[in-house]
Amino acid sequence: MKKLTTTILLIFLVFAGFAQWPGWGKVEYKTMPSKILNQDREYAVYLPPNYEKNTDKNYPVLYLLHGGGGSHTDWPEKGSLAGIANQLMLSNEATEMIIICPEAGKDFMNYFNNPDWRYEDYFFDEMIPFVESNYRVIADKGHRALAGLSMGGQGTVVYAQHHPEMFCAAYTMSGYLYRHDNLFWIDFNDPVQKKVHQLVEDNNCVKFVNEASPEKIANLKTVKWFVDCGDDDFTLKANLEFVLAMQAAEIPLQTRIRDGNHTWEYWHSALYIALPFVSDIFRDNSIQQQ
Amino acid sequence: MKKLTTTILLIFLVFAGFAQWPGWGKVEYKTMPSKILNQDREYAVYLPPNYEKNTDKNYPVLYLLHGGGGSHTDWPEKGSLAGIANQLMLSNEATEMIIICPEAGKDFMNYFNNPDWRYEDYFFDEMIPFVESNYRVIADKGHRALAGLSMGGQGTVVYAQHHPEMFCAAYTMSGYLYRHDNLFWIDFNDPVQKKVHQLVEDNNCVKFVNEASPEKIANLKTVKWFVDCGDDDFTLKANLEFVLAMQAAEIPLQTRIRDGNHTWEYWHSALYIALPFVSDIFRDNSIQQQ
Amino acid sequence: MKKLTTTILLIFLVFAGFAQWPGWGKVEYKTMPSKILNQDREYAVYLPPNYEKNTDKNYPVLYLLHGGGGSHTDWPEKGSLAGIANQLMLSNEATEMIIICPEAGKDFMNYFNNPDWRYEDYFFDEMIPFVESNYRVIADKGHRALAGLSMGGQGTVVYAQHHPEMFCAAYTMSGYLYRHDNLFWIDFNDPVQKKVHQLVEDNNCVKFVNEASPEKIANLKTVKWFVDCGDDDFTLKANLEFVLAMQAAEIPLQTRIRDGNHTWEYWHSALYIALPFVSDIFRDNSIQQQ
Amino acid sequence: MKKLTTTILLIFLVFAGFAQWPGWGKVEYKTMPSKILNQDREYAVYLPPNYEKNTDKNYPVLYLLHGGGGSHTDWPEKGSLAGIANQLMLSNEATEMIIICPEAGKDFMNYFNNPDWRYEDYFFDEMIPFVESNYRVIADKGHRALAGLSMGGQGTVVYAQHHPEMFCAAYTMSGYLYRHDNLFWIDFNDPVQKKVHQLVEDNNCVKFVNEASPEKIANLKTVKWFVDCGDDDFTLKANLEFVLAMQAAEIPLQTRIRDGNHTWEYWHSALYIALPFVSDIFRDNSIQQQ
Repeated sequence: MKKLTTTILLIFLVFAGFAQWPGWGKVEYKTMPSKILNQDREYAVYLPPNYEKNTDKNYPVLYLLHGGGGSHTDWPEKGSLAGIANQLMLSNEATEMIIICPEAGKDFMNYFNNPDWRYEDYFFDEMIPFVESNYRVIADKGHRALAGLSMGGQGTVVYAQHHPEMFCAAYTMSGYLYRHDNLFWIDFNDPVQKKVHQLVEDNNCVKFVNEASPEKIANLKTVKWFVDCGDDDFTLKANLEFVLAMQAAEIPLQTRIRDGNHTWEYWHSALYIALPFVSDIFRDNSIQQQ
Repeated sequence: MKKLTTTILLIFLVFAGFAQWPGWGKVEYKTMPSKILNQDREYAVYLPPNYEKNTDKNYPVLYLLHGGGGSHTDWPEKGSLAGIANQLMLSNEATEMIIICPEAGKDFMNYFNNPDWRYEDYFFDEMIPFVESNYRVIADKGHRALAGLSMGGQGTVVYAQHHPEMFCAAYTMSGYLYRHDNLFWIDFNDPVQKKVHQLVEDNNCVKFVNEASPEKIANLKTVKWFVDCGDDDFTLKANLEFVLAMQAAEIPLQTRIRDGNHTWEYWHSALYIALPFVSDIFRDNSIQQQ
Repeated sequence: MKKLTTTILLIFLVFAGFAQWPGWGKVEYKTMPSKILNQDREYAVYLPPNYEKNTDKNYPVLYLLHGGGGSHTDWPEKGSLAGIANQLMLSNEATEMIIICPEAGKDFMNYFNNPDWRYEDYFFDEMIPFVESNYRVIADKGHRALAGLSMGGQGTVVYAQHHPEMFCAAYTMSGYLYRHDNLFWIDFNDPVQKKVHQLVEDNNCVKFVNEASPEKIANLKTVKWFVDCGDDDFTLKANLEFVLAMQAAEIPLQTRIRDGNHTWEYWHSALYIALPFVSDIFRDNSIQQQ
Repeated sequence: MKKLTTTILLIFLVFAGFAQWPGWGKVEYKTMPSKILNQDREYAVYLPPNYEKNTDKNYPVLYLLHGGGGSHTDWPEKGSLAGIANQLMLSNEATEMIIICPEAGKDFMNYFNNPDWRYEDYFFDEMIPFVESNYRVIADKGHRALAGLSMGGQGTVVYAQHHPEMFCAAYTMSGYLYRHDNLFWIDFNDPVQKKVHQLVEDNNCVKFVNEASPEKIANLKTVKWFVDCGDDDFTLKANLEFVLAMQAAEIPLQTRIRDGNHTWEYWHSALYIALPFVSDIFRDNSIQQQ
């Protein structure tokens, strides 16, 4: 009977479909210290198939942000991160890269700074330097990109708006790009929610573009932008307004409105577009540095 | 603090992406009695968005089989069954249907009959009748279909070969269509594995086609066949031989070899093809019955 | 040498890829009389694979409109109409249907009425009745649909706005939905162009939705709408405004913004989406009539 | 009236969809001298969007072969070469490259050598050198690739089998990989056809792999192979046998069997896969040369 169990376990590992055939890329959960947030902070890291083997090679990095109320385990567990990355890298549709999923849901869900909670400072002053000194990373704008969903879609856009000199690409999925006042599931009288959404609104992505100086707009043009949103998503209006603002400012961007809603099915399919998109940019930037 | 937790929970439910917006189809785990297997038997059922509301409507049924070592929870949990079905039905690319995932991994993993374990009898003599008397089903060949992965891909083909009068469509994904003797992870000296794989070989799908009588072949032509297999899958050879055997017998079939391996990423994407495929057939059969 | 030529011709027919394997659907160019336009009028008709064989079967109809300056030969010759329709019908992703391409480019390019040129009247009072009495058509709202590109995308929307009781579906591609005043290639002082574009503006699709009465909006909801536009298309802004207006009016619609520009590559790929979209609706409507 | 015509012409150019917006890549028809074939020989060349502007940049080259009975104008005119290449390069899914379509249909349709007609010698000894001295080309294996359809699919495979040291990638579409004796449209008693098909059979691609020495197989592994064939194509069997032979020889390859037949719709969609495929390889090879 024990034999049977072992055997069944073995078959299970194979037939049920490995995320982990030997030599494929895999996700690890880790922590890093943060002085700014005054605590240890979790993150997930995907290391590509040949990371352990090619020990003299450096890799581009994608920072992949989760949504409101989520955590660094969302993309690996709900978003099939390793499965998708392995699939695309094994067929060469994506280039090998390191993917970092920060944890932004704990204690106070937000990607931005307020006096008590300087998450954006943590991200730029601690997380990026930590990643770049602990992994074999190509540490320049041309090999550093952002992607994220919902509130992480806003994080993606805002981080690239604040620091266009840091990222070559920004891919926002179902981005919650400003405060929506008509969401029945949010109690805006709740002090925490009020604070969260005030920060969201303070970082209104559409307003940022509309009010950007010519110099700022010139900088925004150095980032490759990609806006992806479902046609039934409650964030569609905000995303379309963002697209129109970007076009009015003559900042080139890719736009996709595909079938879907605010769901993991959508973000799952979005990652199949996002990874090749940033890969082509990473590759081109490697060539131009020659 | 409790307030915070509640709030975060609420946001989580929404922002992290519902599989369950109100009014969407959902999966239930149930059991049914089996005299043949002498036990209660689990299954999962997906009920489409309007099943509860349209109480005078009957629905087509898809039987969706898991792989070796798996269970009835695989498609719902690893295969995003509800997420995919909802996505496709809300956009009308799939028609509303009931989807049944039998449990075939418990006690003895196999879809076929041996003297001690008459699973195929259970499926045809107990499960199908149970489903058709407990759910609002259109109980005819034209609205009953099969799909499955790996060993469930073999189950799909074999059930439709044995009972072409029962199914309008059969969609096999990465089908393990006969015994492979070179799988390092199987101990063929293990008595259980030996028995499992003997049954697999007794139901060799390629041999079945090659040896089919003209009358049998005529019957096989009444089923719409679909073979889907990854180009890096260890079952590719068997699947290509099956395709060639079917073409030699002039039995029409759809074939897709897509990028991928024996993984859930592959089967996830396959379900996006399978549901529209059987939907078009269900719809056409509803029209022809007019 | 003649032998050689003949042989090469024969190979050419096959190897170069038939649009016309025996038994596949094909396009015919025809004319019909028009009293309203006071002339004979060209059109193209695609008859599906089994039209000649199934002489007791009636078919749904799609009216497929060309763009500004084009003609009824555009979809067959630039848009690969027969090739795409055959491909999708042979795999059953589209249902067999008749496809009519009217000629709207001759004499005065426009789909609408002005005192001298009552094209919209021609379409409704002469063309549709002519088609329905000369081809085996299912002549009801449930089996009559519209699709079109650019100015034909506006025609699609406007015809369905004016007569929602006539069409089950409207699929607009790169729709030129109101007059654009900043097109460098249009001389708006040219009297013909001025007149054409005045008619375009008189039929402003966005304004129509914004100003629609509750009763009209209820009628618009009986049509299945689909808006498809390239992310680099000069009509993108108008299309996004139309989507936002439709959503504000709570009229359900499908929206796709895909990669591309105002090109035949875009419309070619759009037809691969449009035919399955209207097919699912035609099929459902055939079932509901039972 | 002249005014009207001019205006309509202008609108036509725009609304009907440019293949040629200013600054997009375009196709030119040219000739080159051949001593081996003792004549001037036609070819088509696609120059990418920035070729004229970036006068100090060199580009990778794809040789794109037509099918039996075709000519160098097939890909540009039936295969929408410029439209597809522009679409993919403008969105960066393909890298800018030069695409050369040789003429192999004139006088004697075949890609191979016989004593009277040394086309393969022409291709390697005259055409490639001509291209590399007349266009700004990166003239190495890492930036030289092959693709082709039907008899050009055989040409693709055979050229890469004969000269794996010359090409980084070979993408065969609906490849006619050996002589098919059951084609009703070929008169095998016709002396020209007999000769053509003898050459086809002399270059049997499956046999080549089966009989390859270990050293040859090692060389074949330096090419990235891609086999793409429709599931209803009459060449399917040959293509599946080729895939199985390559897998038996442990030569990595990509395989896609998609819906379709021996048609331009199939090859049109194949080019959307082929150009990104070779682009990723070109890009990686540029990086590795650093």
